[in-house]
Amino acid sequence: MSKKLAIGVIGAGRIGQIHAKALAFMVPRAEVACVSDLRLDAAKALADECGAAKTTDDYQDIINDKSIDAVCICSTTDTHAQIMEEAANVGKHVFCEKPIALELPAIDKALAAVKKAGIVLMLGFNRRYDSGNIAIRDAVSSGKVGIPELCLITSRDPAPPPLDHMKLTGGFFLDTSIHDFDIARFVLGDEPEEVFSYAACRVDPRIGEIGDFDTCMHTLRFKNGAFCNIDNSRRATYGYDQRVEVFGSKGSIATVNKLENNTVFADGDGIHTPPLQNFFLERYLAAYQAEGRIFVDCVQSGTQPPSGGYDGRISVVMAKAALKSVREKRPVRMEEVEA
Amino acid sequence: MSKKLAIGVIGAGRIGQIHAKALAFMVPRAEVACVSDLRLDAAKALADECGAAKTTDDYQDIINDKSIDAVCICSTTDTHAQIMEEAANVGKHVFCEKPIALELPAIDKALAAVKKAGIVLMLGFNRRYDSGNIAIRDAVSSGKVGIPELCLITSRDPAPPPLDHMKLTGGFFLDTSIHDFDIARFVLGDEPEEVFSYAACRVDPRIGEIGDFDTCMHTLRFKNGAFCNIDNSRRATYGYDQRVEVFGSKGSIATVNKLENNTVFADGDGIHTPPLQNFFLERYLAAYQAEGRIFVDCVQSGTQPPSGGYDGRISVVMAKAALKSVREKRPVRMEEVEA
Amino acid sequence: MSKKLAIGVIGAGRIGQIHAKALAFMVPRAEVACVSDLRLDAAKALADECGAAKTTDDYQDIINDKSIDAVCICSTTDTHAQIMEEAANVGKHVFCEKPIALELPAIDKALAAVKKAGIVLMLGFNRRYDSGNIAIRDAVSSGKVGIPELCLITSRDPAPPPLDHMKLTGGFFLDTSIHDFDIARFVLGDEPEEVFSYAACRVDPRIGEIGDFDTCMHTLRFKNGAFCNIDNSRRATYGYDQRVEVFGSKGSIATVNKLENNTVFADGDGIHTPPLQNFFLERYLAAYQAEGRIFVDCVQSGTQPPSGGYDGRISVVMAKAALKSVREKRPVRMEEVEA
Amino acid sequence: MSKKLAIGVIGAGRIGQIHAKALAFMVPRAEVACVSDLRLDAAKALADECGAAKTTDDYQDIINDKSIDAVCICSTTDTHAQIMEEAANVGKHVFCEKPIALELPAIDKALAAVKKAGIVLMLGFNRRYDSGNIAIRDAVSSGKVGIPELCLITSRDPAPPPLDHMKLTGGFFLDTSIHDFDIARFVLGDEPEEVFSYAACRVDPRIGEIGDFDTCMHTLRFKNGAFCNIDNSRRATYGYDQRVEVFGSKGSIATVNKLENNTVFADGDGIHTPPLQNFFLERYLAAYQAEGRIFVDCVQSGTQPPSGGYDGRISVVMAKAALKSVREKRPVRMEEVEA
Repeated sequence: MSKKLAIGVIGAGRIGQIHAKALAFMVPRAEVACVSDLRLDAAKALADECGAAKTTDDYQDIINDKSIDAVCICSTTDTHAQIMEEAANVGKHVFCEKPIALELPAIDKALAAVKKAGIVLMLGFNRRYDSGNIAIRDAVSSGKVGIPELCLITSRDPAPPPLDHMKLTGGFFLDTSIHDFDIARFVLGDEPEEVFSYAACRVDPRIGEIGDFDTCMHTLRFKNGAFCNIDNSRRATYGYDQRVEVFGSKGSIATVNKLENNTVFADGDGIHTPPLQNFFLERYLAAYQAEGRIFVDCVQSGTQPPSGGYDGRISVVMAKAALKSVREKRPVRMEEVEA
Repeated sequence: MSKKLAIGVIGAGRIGQIHAKALAFMVPRAEVACVSDLRLDAAKALADECGAAKTTDDYQDIINDKSIDAVCICSTTDTHAQIMEEAANVGKHVFCEKPIALELPAIDKALAAVKKAGIVLMLGFNRRYDSGNIAIRDAVSSGKVGIPELCLITSRDPAPPPLDHMKLTGGFFLDTSIHDFDIARFVLGDEPEEVFSYAACRVDPRIGEIGDFDTCMHTLRFKNGAFCNIDNSRRATYGYDQRVEVFGSKGSIATVNKLENNTVFADGDGIHTPPLQNFFLERYLAAYQAEGRIFVDCVQSGTQPPSGGYDGRISVVMAKAALKSVREKRPVRMEEVEA
Repeated sequence: MSKKLAIGVIGAGRIGQIHAKALAFMVPRAEVACVSDLRLDAAKALADECGAAKTTDDYQDIINDKSIDAVCICSTTDTHAQIMEEAANVGKHVFCEKPIALELPAIDKALAAVKKAGIVLMLGFNRRYDSGNIAIRDAVSSGKVGIPELCLITSRDPAPPPLDHMKLTGGFFLDTSIHDFDIARFVLGDEPEEVFSYAACRVDPRIGEIGDFDTCMHTLRFKNGAFCNIDNSRRATYGYDQRVEVFGSKGSIATVNKLENNTVFADGDGIHTPPLQNFFLERYLAAYQAEGRIFVDCVQSGTQPPSGGYDGRISVVMAKAALKSVREKRPVRMEEVEA
Repeated sequence: MSKKLAIGVIGAGRIGQIHAKALAFMVPRAEVACVSDLRLDAAKALADECGAAKTTDDYQDIINDKSIDAVCICSTTDTHAQIMEEAANVGKHVFCEKPIALELPAIDKALAAVKKAGIVLMLGFNRRYDSGNIAIRDAVSSGKVGIPELCLITSRDPAPPPLDHMKLTGGFFLDTSIHDFDIARFVLGDEPEEVFSYAACRVDPRIGEIGDFDTCMHTLRFKNGAFCNIDNSRRATYGYDQRVEVFGSKGSIATVNKLENNTVFADGDGIHTPPLQNFFLERYLAAYQAEGRIFVDCVQSGTQPPSGGYDGRISVVMAKAALKSVREKRPVRMEEVEA
């Protein structure tokens, strides 16, 4: 076996565990070399599970460890940009969870360091590595659906995360809608021009009390003329609802939801299938595994991944434009956020 | 408007009502001229609903009425052959419900009269006029599925008919499986060679007490080599289950069930659609209407319909062979029944 | 048989034929007494088909015919309000195709006459009589989906109508989106507050040349807080796409499309079903028939139908607000159109 | 980390690779300690991929290696029973691919050794570890479908294996139908009484030349009265068709096929989804992984697995009864094979 890519996982929470396990078990050419977390116990537990030799409660130990080739940034949002910059400065490749940061200047500073260092940077837009979304993207880019005219994206979580988590993530649009903004660009192969958004707090009044939303609808116009609607909710009783549809001049292509299992039960009340796969860990398991493999491929071949720094930045611009639209009750153009 | 075909409906029960209403309202070139039923009240009620001018409790009045062009035989099974013969003898065209009779000599006598008279005879195999079954037949006959190798037919009623009805119909195979025997021949475009059947009374012990079955599985070998399985039950809690599948060397084609409406409801228990359309009146409404139109077309154009005397006879042969298989616990060839 | 409701059908075009045939054949307690059309030939052909005794090229003959109980207005949009008013003034009940008129003052004048006369007025919002849409409305009104929060409506025609037709109908929103505006109110049981719309000409440049659109997306906020997205196109290669979904605090309910038949074909390229039922005549046939029956029921029982004058008026207000939104590139509140 | 179960994989062919990789990567408490194959190159390649330290071309090296806790028998069918016996004699636990042997005396001898040694024996009936089949089994055993009355199993391979493989496996029934015989017992929770089978060579005449079949239909009666139909083909153009349905007095439950991805494409030809997952490696990947985990669980907890020696033996009895049925053209009872 050739040498495996040694990866330091920073942050041993829910998403850190997903990435660490995918890298350890499903990516033959990678190994988890070290796990860091402010809670050393959490770091040790994950390291043990993934066969990682080292643990630390200070991510700087990973930055300074010359035997580590790349970092996987899964810490809280407010630390992403700083760690990315430090890793780039020492020549380590970076896989980073979204968003890079909540403000554009911080993003631009980190991306400048990445560019200067010439490292590989991959953003954690896991849905780009889902086989269904890839099939839609391919059907659009190959011309199979013709010119894209309408796009519908539904993304509804089964239940809201803890309030403390929500406070740290930049709010509903930067935490959740950001995935849909990214996937709209991905499947349409086009850039957004303008967004009009409605948002409200319908699920839990405590979400409104911290100034956040839990239910929203975004309507976008893309540069080539496609209209796109995104609807989001923090609570769907029937599971994790994930659908994308692109309608074009030659046809339409859409993903359907994945269910807990493939049975159909019939009785006097009707025909019943199980609920949707409950949440992202189940629904996008294969996508997370593909994401890990592609990151290692890109590092080893020196190519840029399908989700990079620009994607990380523009998705934040879209979220900010949507927020401005809600506040000012009008459609907002992307360049208004840049100013 | 050109002259409408004047039809006398004999038998105002459930199936007589279906045909009379289809002819009255959905077949522009037909009219219900007279309704007969042993229960004159039933005849009058149906005549009133269909705009029929005449009623009688003696079907001979229809046979003797020279203004009537054709008869629609919907009386009890034991009367079909006799009425068919009498109608043929006076030159009236005949639409007849299945089966023609429970014994082959009676069938052969009636068919001889039909042949001698040169009238149009159409058998009430309504499923042949269902758009889904026609699409399967076409996919087989056009070569789209290649050489047919396997055929699966599921036909399950929502609930058994009254015991008194069952006593008159010749039993489960001649009353119910007969439709599946016919549709197997229809979609495969082939003739049966041998049948092996299992049958039991599982639904209601009173059915067993009158010597009948309510649950069965027939396996057939057709002349061109296809194997066919038919499963039947008198009781499906979820509605009227009607499926046909033909698998061949180039592909497979199947019908899916029709539901009460086209909604999908999702909640924490899963994804739910309504039950199947409950029974044959709903499920095959369009087929009954097409059947009526095609009967009138055939009479007016002098052509033979898609379900004729031979189909009526061979389906009885198949049912008898199946019954012999159950009794003798072995596969039975069609010619064994003829002997 | 009790006396049938005598109906005069005004306009023998596509939609006039649908209603006349439904009333003649599928509504036992109605009869088409007279058909009028500026093209007398068209009137005669339809009258012949429906068994109507009288024909005329002047709808005033119907207004003045005291033996006629009700009119079914299927003429061009610009004549609806005037005929409605005249019919009301002589006490005839009115079934009227949408829209009542293109301008609110004309609508208000006609509705005032209706109110004064105390007649029954039913608007031709056929989708309200579709069993799937009724099931959604019932699931919302019964509380089965909980508090409605999101609504998605997709309505795409297979192909644009002739340009000449489009010039007469008031444009894409008043001709087509009007059905979706109405169905949104119907399923949500709520009134719209504001709309933001994107529209473009993507299908045929000649549609743009007459100042009209063929592709659009409307986002609405309803009074109780639900957000609703409607997407429309004049061209879907795969047939007539008709979907409605309501998502609420307890679950979600949606309609799925109806296909040409219920077969599934599988080969090396994948699994294939037929295209969608091509257009409204096929897709909403049962709804048109139910609509006719309910109109007659309402007249005979003196009750008001599920789609009345207010529905006819507010749907025009919504279309006008959407048009204003496109022109002024901002969300528009309903009351802005009233002013 | 606690000590992992050291497993020797015997046979590095297609199924050996599946099991070795599942054990190495997806079963945390197992490790592949050694790989043996008559072709040492194949053993080394698989060992390298799975991180196994040892390789050999003589499985006796595994039997004699005291550091190895269990064997995974994936060699050719004719060697299974002998290896099982040898492993049992030295106290190693055994996972064995089906069938144990082609003749009952050889099976009985191996099972006697297993019993005497008191080891854990698990048979490779992978479909028992599929979440859909488990859900059906649970719905039957919990009474959710009521008393099982009918069972339909469809299992069609995308393409025949090489002729040389077919010659070694004991023929179509012992190689392929055996899985369906087992799953029928599994989902019905019942034992077979009698079988009637039709079989033919339709796919490739060379299969007939070696005395084998490629297309068949088995009809079984189970002890509690259920009728079961199994249909098999060696060639389905649309992929690997795997369906199970159990119909009972309270309802029906069935699995639907899994597709290559979850997209739906619509154009003028209809609605299209991708083909079925092509073959067992894709379709039952998760089942193979679960199987490995459960084997290790059983060994570590000293419990017997869901698929054991009795299941391995009775499935061979069923295959032999089916073969006898084809040859003698009559239904055959299980005890006739035992004699």
